[in-house]
Amino acid sequence: MPRVALVVDVVRMEERMLLDVLRSRAETETVDAGSMPLEVGSNSFDAAVIRPISMYRAAYAAASFEAARVFTVNRSETIMLAGDKMLTYARLAAARVPTPRSFYASSPQAALKAAEKLGYPVVIKAPLGSWGRLVSRVDNPVELEQLARLRQGLPCSQTRSMIVQEYLDTGGSDIRCIVMAGSLLGCIRRIAGSGEWRSNVALGARTEAYNADPALEDLVLRAAAAVKGFFVSIDVFETRERGYLVNEVNGVPEFKGFYRATGINPAVRLAEALIEELKR
Amino acid sequence: MPRVALVVDVVRMEERMLLDVLRSRAETETVDAGSMPLEVGSNSFDAAVIRPISMYRAAYAAASFEAARVFTVNRSETIMLAGDKMLTYARLAAARVPTPRSFYASSPQAALKAAEKLGYPVVIKAPLGSWGRLVSRVDNPVELEQLARLRQGLPCSQTRSMIVQEYLDTGGSDIRCIVMAGSLLGCIRRIAGSGEWRSNVALGARTEAYNADPALEDLVLRAAAAVKGFFVSIDVFETRERGYLVNEVNGVPEFKGFYRATGINPAVRLAEALIEELKR
Amino acid sequence: MPRVALVVDVVRMEERMLLDVLRSRAETETVDAGSMPLEVGSNSFDAAVIRPISMYRAAYAAASFEAARVFTVNRSETIMLAGDKMLTYARLAAARVPTPRSFYASSPQAALKAAEKLGYPVVIKAPLGSWGRLVSRVDNPVELEQLARLRQGLPCSQTRSMIVQEYLDTGGSDIRCIVMAGSLLGCIRRIAGSGEWRSNVALGARTEAYNADPALEDLVLRAAAAVKGFFVSIDVFETRERGYLVNEVNGVPEFKGFYRATGINPAVRLAEALIEELKR
Amino acid sequence: MPRVALVVDVVRMEERMLLDVLRSRAETETVDAGSMPLEVGSNSFDAAVIRPISMYRAAYAAASFEAARVFTVNRSETIMLAGDKMLTYARLAAARVPTPRSFYASSPQAALKAAEKLGYPVVIKAPLGSWGRLVSRVDNPVELEQLARLRQGLPCSQTRSMIVQEYLDTGGSDIRCIVMAGSLLGCIRRIAGSGEWRSNVALGARTEAYNADPALEDLVLRAAAAVKGFFVSIDVFETRERGYLVNEVNGVPEFKGFYRATGINPAVRLAEALIEELKR
Repeated sequence: MPRVALVVDVVRMEERMLLDVLRSRAETETVDAGSMPLEVGSNSFDAAVIRPISMYRAAYAAASFEAARVFTVNRSETIMLAGDKMLTYARLAAARVPTPRSFYASSPQAALKAAEKLGYPVVIKAPLGSWGRLVSRVDNPVELEQLARLRQGLPCSQTRSMIVQEYLDTGGSDIRCIVMAGSLLGCIRRIAGSGEWRSNVALGARTEAYNADPALEDLVLRAAAAVKGFFVSIDVFETRERGYLVNEVNGVPEFKGFYRATGINPAVRLAEALIEELKR
Repeated sequence: MPRVALVVDVVRMEERMLLDVLRSRAETETVDAGSMPLEVGSNSFDAAVIRPISMYRAAYAAASFEAARVFTVNRSETIMLAGDKMLTYARLAAARVPTPRSFYASSPQAALKAAEKLGYPVVIKAPLGSWGRLVSRVDNPVELEQLARLRQGLPCSQTRSMIVQEYLDTGGSDIRCIVMAGSLLGCIRRIAGSGEWRSNVALGARTEAYNADPALEDLVLRAAAAVKGFFVSIDVFETRERGYLVNEVNGVPEFKGFYRATGINPAVRLAEALIEELKR
Repeated sequence: MPRVALVVDVVRMEERMLLDVLRSRAETETVDAGSMPLEVGSNSFDAAVIRPISMYRAAYAAASFEAARVFTVNRSETIMLAGDKMLTYARLAAARVPTPRSFYASSPQAALKAAEKLGYPVVIKAPLGSWGRLVSRVDNPVELEQLARLRQGLPCSQTRSMIVQEYLDTGGSDIRCIVMAGSLLGCIRRIAGSGEWRSNVALGARTEAYNADPALEDLVLRAAAAVKGFFVSIDVFETRERGYLVNEVNGVPEFKGFYRATGINPAVRLAEALIEELKR
Repeated sequence: MPRVALVVDVVRMEERMLLDVLRSRAETETVDAGSMPLEVGSNSFDAAVIRPISMYRAAYAAASFEAARVFTVNRSETIMLAGDKMLTYARLAAARVPTPRSFYASSPQAALKAAEKLGYPVVIKAPLGSWGRLVSRVDNPVELEQLARLRQGLPCSQTRSMIVQEYLDTGGSDIRCIVMAGSLLGCIRRIAGSGEWRSNVALGARTEAYNADPALEDLVLRAAAAVKGFFVSIDVFETRERGYLVNEVNGVPEFKGFYRATGINPAVRLAEALIEELKR
């Protein structure tokens, strides 16, 4: 029986589901990355499922295991690439996966120039940050300059840096697909809460199952491959003129809402795919 | 003639040297990443030499160019891996490159456990940070607990996280080698200022040329390959019991001191290697 | 019946006790300073009892009420003075209330000079911060320099600034007295948890009732007056050579432990003193 | 001859002017608050002129001297009150000095409620911060909510807290008066740069001398008294409906522009007033 580490900080419903299904298929041990030190390159596991909520805790935990050539889901590279929207966009673009048109701006001055090229309204995002925080829609240069100046006071480079992006009218909905081991597991549609343009569940969006057409399936598989993701969720905008665009990839995906809407249990599929992988 | 972007924020002596030598070999343009927005995936350069001092500015600038499949030195992946000591150690360990024994600790509690396993004194480092800042030597648990608690107040994950590492008595000296396009360019030795255990030039260390033996050459070439570095500097400790250990890799290397001590001009070598690369 | 606002953010046992006793004596309304805006200088209360845990929230709430000449316990001035140890020490010293010998240092360099004058070990404190966080005992210049350098990375002036203070061996105990409306309510003794030199209850200290002698009573009444406190708790060290020294004043005092150890209910006494005050 | 300390961190033109005039009237010593520790309550000066740019450095330096009952200009209390706009407004309101209508809001939710009461546009300010940084004009709830959410990421309470204030159309100009030892020294008018609504000289405003009428003189003298300022500058808005309103008080005033526009040298006047004060 393979030895699997379930690496966590906060234990959510997802982690409890994972523990349940992993236990029946592998010798599973929960590792609390908050209180336990992780030696770089020394441990006795065959695989590690990486679930800390904190992005860096997840990436560093994964890296510690990879140092000992343990198979990780996801690997630290995927967690770092998906966790940073700037790096995600760059990898997707290099892989010819369409995304919203985006600029990197490191100062208010640069942001104003980028917005001028895009035309208003624009979206300002930080490379880092979940659940729609640090995402703003800006309608004119005065507002942009105020916001960009204020952002200069944020303490960390990855939240202070700006992605200046075209604003896409998606009617307040987006599609989230889960890719596992190179296959599409399924998709859901998230419809924004009324009066809210961001379709984050944390901001009141509701969800429903969604059937992917071949174009969408092809897109998300290529997106997952671009960040070397074994188990990732991918957020997609559907636009009239340009079809599907990938907006975000998540390297430690939440899947409670996906499970509820589709009946597909990502925890079970992950356990199966992982055992399969370890047999190779 | 190839088109090369020299991407900068602050222009140091290194950047002036690079501009000089690049200009005679390529159509070179300086791009100020502080004031100019960089479009993700659209530009007209063949290559970009990435030189911002800010690590994230460097990585995001590189990523913007890579999105358009421009050749970058170094690529964003190298800048991110080398810029983060935790990720560096994990990659080196996975590639069987020896490093100081290290643990990742995300809390005072975890740090205390790691130090207990290593034995005191230990070194506490942040994954991010240059010039010896955020590196402490700690002699006992009381001191460690104080320091770790204080670090909890730092605002960014990458500086708040801790690498707990064995303390190595290197007699206050280390070796820095520069690797360019898979070859060793040369090495220097840095000898710490008196009363200072860290051999950072910024902290008063002096430098001299150093002849690499085959073991050292092999080590640093493998280290550069482990982080996919085209032009990197690699800091090495020489220890009595365990020979050479890689302590750090720099993805946007300073080379003023190296040039002064060895007479080898990395700017010229970089320009040559880059032109060679673009001919392929 | 007077109108009293009980201003809170988090409601602890203390705030529930206060609400209980205030309700029977005044028309009392709870004001949540976290979710409600407070107009500067306009409201219909006769008095406000200020209880937010966040120091600035407490001070700004008090100031908003004072702008309308509402009687506040404590007033914003007391909250600001007591909340900042540097300002506390200065006021106490000006009022000839003995305190530990202290220096203000705004850089590692200044801290090293201060420690040299005091002799090691020294205590390093931030002006702001509760429950023993950001308080360190330092044994030598190397350790101090490390700690001071690390503190430079803290993001706020009031936590980055340093008070360099003589280390006093108090046998791990201190005395906490509560002063109400110019009278001593009572004192408790806190004895540090084993292996811990700081006598914070949050760090495992236990408490017992303590009888104040006239010297202690005089001291704490003068300390309360020095910061214009109506209802404050005062932490006192007892030393062999120099007798009682005031170490800290709290402008939004917790009193759960005091009540348990002494049987004296500060909530009842506060309600009585407040009603008395409003009659004047 | 009295002994005067000129306490500085960065030495600007103002500090050089002060040093010049103080030297001819007193035994003057420059004290660098950045590199020197300041003992709380022990020194040999008769007075201290407090000039550090950093607000807390200024306040703590003043407090250190006051602890030894040294006369300070300004005293720490004035520096803290004037340095924090929330505390300034509260003191002014309590002293019946008219100010823009203002609310304290500690969350996006509270800010939205405050703006609803005021009507849009509103001004959002942080209690701390100079030169127009962290001051935003907001036109609608969507913009306010975005800005307020973003501000939650700022690391320090005093910059994260919000003052929600009525927007006053002042035609882009304001008046700055300097009060010294209870008398009006003079006023200047600052006219905002084109396309900029904030009249900060740092943001391109130009200045001219301005004759105060008795109403303005009365207002600024009462404002200075409200914060116990010995030498303060006071920013005033002139409005059609409500006449003069005090917008800000500065406890470590810059006066280069004032001197240039009026020919009155505040450094000379300060030296004279200080010597006068010490004779009492």
